[in-house]
Amino acid sequence: MALHRFTPTHYHTTLGSHAPVLRIAPGDTVETSLVDSAGVDAAGRHVTPDGNPQTGPFYVEGAEPGDTLVVRLDRVAPSRGRGYTAGVIAPNVVDPGYVAEMPARRRIEWAVDAAAGTATLLDPSTALGALTLPLAPMIGCFGVAPEGGQAISTATSGPHGGNMDYRGFGAGVTVHFPVFVPGALLHIGDGHGLQGDGEIVGTGIEISMDVAFTVDLRKGRTIRWPRGESDTHLFTVGNARPLDQAVQHATTEMLRLLQEEYGLDGYSAHILLGQCVEYDLGNVFDPAYTMVCKIAKSVLRRIARTG
Amino acid sequence: MALHRFTPTHYHTTLGSHAPVLRIAPGDTVETSLVDSAGVDAAGRHVTPDGNPQTGPFYVEGAEPGDTLVVRLDRVAPSRGRGYTAGVIAPNVVDPGYVAEMPARRRIEWAVDAAAGTATLLDPSTALGALTLPLAPMIGCFGVAPEGGQAISTATSGPHGGNMDYRGFGAGVTVHFPVFVPGALLHIGDGHGLQGDGEIVGTGIEISMDVAFTVDLRKGRTIRWPRGESDTHLFTVGNARPLDQAVQHATTEMLRLLQEEYGLDGYSAHILLGQCVEYDLGNVFDPAYTMVCKIAKSVLRRIARTG
Amino acid sequence: MALHRFTPTHYHTTLGSHAPVLRIAPGDTVETSLVDSAGVDAAGRHVTPDGNPQTGPFYVEGAEPGDTLVVRLDRVAPSRGRGYTAGVIAPNVVDPGYVAEMPARRRIEWAVDAAAGTATLLDPSTALGALTLPLAPMIGCFGVAPEGGQAISTATSGPHGGNMDYRGFGAGVTVHFPVFVPGALLHIGDGHGLQGDGEIVGTGIEISMDVAFTVDLRKGRTIRWPRGESDTHLFTVGNARPLDQAVQHATTEMLRLLQEEYGLDGYSAHILLGQCVEYDLGNVFDPAYTMVCKIAKSVLRRIARTG
Amino acid sequence: MALHRFTPTHYHTTLGSHAPVLRIAPGDTVETSLVDSAGVDAAGRHVTPDGNPQTGPFYVEGAEPGDTLVVRLDRVAPSRGRGYTAGVIAPNVVDPGYVAEMPARRRIEWAVDAAAGTATLLDPSTALGALTLPLAPMIGCFGVAPEGGQAISTATSGPHGGNMDYRGFGAGVTVHFPVFVPGALLHIGDGHGLQGDGEIVGTGIEISMDVAFTVDLRKGRTIRWPRGESDTHLFTVGNARPLDQAVQHATTEMLRLLQEEYGLDGYSAHILLGQCVEYDLGNVFDPAYTMVCKIAKSVLRRIARTG
Repeated sequence: MALHRFTPTHYHTTLGSHAPVLRIAPGDTVETSLVDSAGVDAAGRHVTPDGNPQTGPFYVEGAEPGDTLVVRLDRVAPSRGRGYTAGVIAPNVVDPGYVAEMPARRRIEWAVDAAAGTATLLDPSTALGALTLPLAPMIGCFGVAPEGGQAISTATSGPHGGNMDYRGFGAGVTVHFPVFVPGALLHIGDGHGLQGDGEIVGTGIEISMDVAFTVDLRKGRTIRWPRGESDTHLFTVGNARPLDQAVQHATTEMLRLLQEEYGLDGYSAHILLGQCVEYDLGNVFDPAYTMVCKIAKSVLRRIARTG
Repeated sequence: MALHRFTPTHYHTTLGSHAPVLRIAPGDTVETSLVDSAGVDAAGRHVTPDGNPQTGPFYVEGAEPGDTLVVRLDRVAPSRGRGYTAGVIAPNVVDPGYVAEMPARRRIEWAVDAAAGTATLLDPSTALGALTLPLAPMIGCFGVAPEGGQAISTATSGPHGGNMDYRGFGAGVTVHFPVFVPGALLHIGDGHGLQGDGEIVGTGIEISMDVAFTVDLRKGRTIRWPRGESDTHLFTVGNARPLDQAVQHATTEMLRLLQEEYGLDGYSAHILLGQCVEYDLGNVFDPAYTMVCKIAKSVLRRIARTG
Repeated sequence: MALHRFTPTHYHTTLGSHAPVLRIAPGDTVETSLVDSAGVDAAGRHVTPDGNPQTGPFYVEGAEPGDTLVVRLDRVAPSRGRGYTAGVIAPNVVDPGYVAEMPARRRIEWAVDAAAGTATLLDPSTALGALTLPLAPMIGCFGVAPEGGQAISTATSGPHGGNMDYRGFGAGVTVHFPVFVPGALLHIGDGHGLQGDGEIVGTGIEISMDVAFTVDLRKGRTIRWPRGESDTHLFTVGNARPLDQAVQHATTEMLRLLQEEYGLDGYSAHILLGQCVEYDLGNVFDPAYTMVCKIAKSVLRRIARTG
Repeated sequence: MALHRFTPTHYHTTLGSHAPVLRIAPGDTVETSLVDSAGVDAAGRHVTPDGNPQTGPFYVEGAEPGDTLVVRLDRVAPSRGRGYTAGVIAPNVVDPGYVAEMPARRRIEWAVDAAAGTATLLDPSTALGALTLPLAPMIGCFGVAPEGGQAISTATSGPHGGNMDYRGFGAGVTVHFPVFVPGALLHIGDGHGLQGDGEIVGTGIEISMDVAFTVDLRKGRTIRWPRGESDTHLFTVGNARPLDQAVQHATTEMLRLLQEEYGLDGYSAHILLGQCVEYDLGNVFDPAYTMVCKIAKSVLRRIARTG
């Protein structure tokens, strides 16, 4: 249950079997910092090339292929007063025939006030004025080293996690990743002060972060796609194109979760999901899109009562 | 502002330029009844072939191609005590390699208590016991006659609406449809006592309904996809396969809405959606899938304040 | 075995249960004419609105739902000296990020010399000069009335055929359609002097046609998707979006064909297709895309020899 | 113009920045051997884990990011008398509702006679008898190290090439790859004695190979996707899901090719492709599908004559 304070000195733009920066044990907490997606730190210094640079990887003692790594996001806090977004929706998110009508791409600056919990638009040229939105800080890209010796770009995602850009990955959420290599090798980066569903402009409010997370291990529990738990829901994550396939992965993983973790037979799992499932759109911008399949804990408690 | 009480004598399983059953004026309200998706009425009689039979069409005086038909759902109320669902997730919603592991399809009965606002599972063979869920009644399939003399199956959807199977279509919601033919020709059917996101088993709790709706007309306002408004959000609806294309339609229509209705320039609309857009999954079962693009009214009020 | 010479007086832009223009018997041949996709006839007169206007429908005596209609294309011959194409690839066929780089849409004229079998570009503004290509005349849109009282736009396609825009539909080919309504109700139109794979600009060389076809009936033989036969191949046709789904339909239908028509067990059909299947891209422009699954007759003869 | 005879001692199941096994110069030819996709060599020994093990990588002197690597396949020859295939079509290639009807997966053996140029089915349990097919040897998986430090599984493909499983990659074909790292780092493996379009069972006739290839370099010529040339066609390759996106990549790259290599203006390139483009289906099995966009050299000669 140690607390590690780790200051990164280098970053990775792939999730892969890179040399660990720190060895931690199940139950340990790490406090560390993330540069923004462009490689700029809390002091505004451009310290590493852009592309969702990752802090880590962290080697979790005892993690072996086939286990599940549990990561609780304890703190996800913007660490400076300025973030940026892209200003135009990606061409793959609008009708192909509408693309030619779109405005030119431009970088937009936002003032971020972590104490007040707000982000304020700094672009005087728009009709939005000093639009002020509530912060909802989250992690865009995190996960473990993938299987088979792959090193997968932080632009995309897969069974190992990666660039899922799901606004549900904020403080208080616990995420489970399949372990493919000894030590799991957890990477984390790409903080967003807030983000719309789908990350349709290709960014949230990109900003450096101070984060804390606590890891745990489920020995011998094998999952195929990331899973997780919020205050209100259990969820599973599918990453693929088209979105239909992401739905398939997430839904199939949820069927497995309900059978493995809740002892439901397959038939009961199908009926339950049929009328109670919820879906969130992670991203529809990255090479692999992300859909999240959810079931409310309140529904599961109904089964416990009635079953 | 007349109130019409209409009792259907026949039904349609396409949305098309069928003979109107009633002529109504903008501002009028219609109270009528819907058989369930299998063609069974409130008394349990099988009165018409299955396939989401539609009540209507209703001819709205003054509606011309290029106008927008406004339909407010005033009442969406199950009209009998028993509904049914399919019991197994559709094979297109799970991983192709998982299909062979799925249980056999079976029809499931539910007791529906409209007064208590609950649906209770009646299948004694599952581990779910007498699972009781809160009702959230909604319309699965409604819309107008499509353009070009088409008659489109109630199995699917398009710019004219149709079988969108979106759980957001409950009482209190206002939906806008493009008008393609004189009188618009509104059809309505396929009530669900409740439904999971995506209608992944191919049904909600299918049940006959008593409904009331009020129509209005926006002369000369042309939209390309259904739009609507709930207590909390404005939304647009895209219907297509794959889901990616449904996202494209809904997002493009929302860009148009923000520019046409809120006077935003394109650039402001892009920035606003980028960080504030929300998406709901309608159905991922029917021939055309449905995605809903939403913007919170609370966000729009922020612009009004700051703009 | 009658020969009917039919001169159309009106046209349809949906495939549906329209009043038949002629009743014909299995074995009969029809000689008739098609306007081009814009509704212009052989004399250059604009006689009907655009949108792939269809000649017909022809009622085939004895055809009942569940039968298969057999249509042999005997003659597919351009009937005037001038055709047209679109000049720019559709935005859905290029990378979304490339759309903004594309030239403006423009109509292109071609001189068509049916005797010489050539089409020659008439646009002096391009670097292609008087590019001359060999004609390969084909039918873009044909099929039967769909099931369930639908009337489906000639812009798209489905199990009933329709706007498949497959360059393989030329003279000498036999096409099988499922019969959904009494008389089958064959529609035909949208002649192309030649076309690239995919119809990626949204047109072939659009031109009016003189056509002849001979119909036959397979009583009690039920198919789910169009099938056909050329000199060299048997084929099946899948129409859907995305292309992946069109592949699924066509491949599944070919598995059925091999089992139903050639007496192969499922296992043998899988092995055979695995190493011998061929696919052609029909269109990747229309609302439903088209993929064609083929097996060479020469391969089937090998089985006959060895089996 | 040296000739290198290289005997591999180890293999890779990712395409990545692995230590080169040999340094070669532009113009050089390499003769080497490939194990089959399961890691079995010409003598039937299982020498490395399965998963399309790659021989190489070969470092090409002078290759720098932004250049184009040219690889001519001189010889692609099965090196033993026995190959294998999977026996059942992959579940993602048939209708989801058909999956449950499919036979169980099974490995099928084939006798391969390189001298006679034939493969003969060795499974006595099928109705196909001793089905004998003509060999058409090809390379399933080859390409260069991807950009950004990625190591990409030999199960899939991308701009760097990889597991494209396109039956057009046989002897006599020249393939161009973008260079992302110094030396390009060419990998090659996964020989197929023959293969159906789409690799729909997930294999061709998998067999070890003796291969020869000659490399060249186009300094400063940057391409985005693999391109190539056969006796009859120029082609470009798109790798993505869904197939629609693979079409987009390949078509866009062909537009670039025609403008960069043939001096066509954009407008002429669009018109030419519109009526003359051809598409081949590479694979529809791997995580990224492959579509090939082709233009006949005979068509390009027509332009030269007329332009």
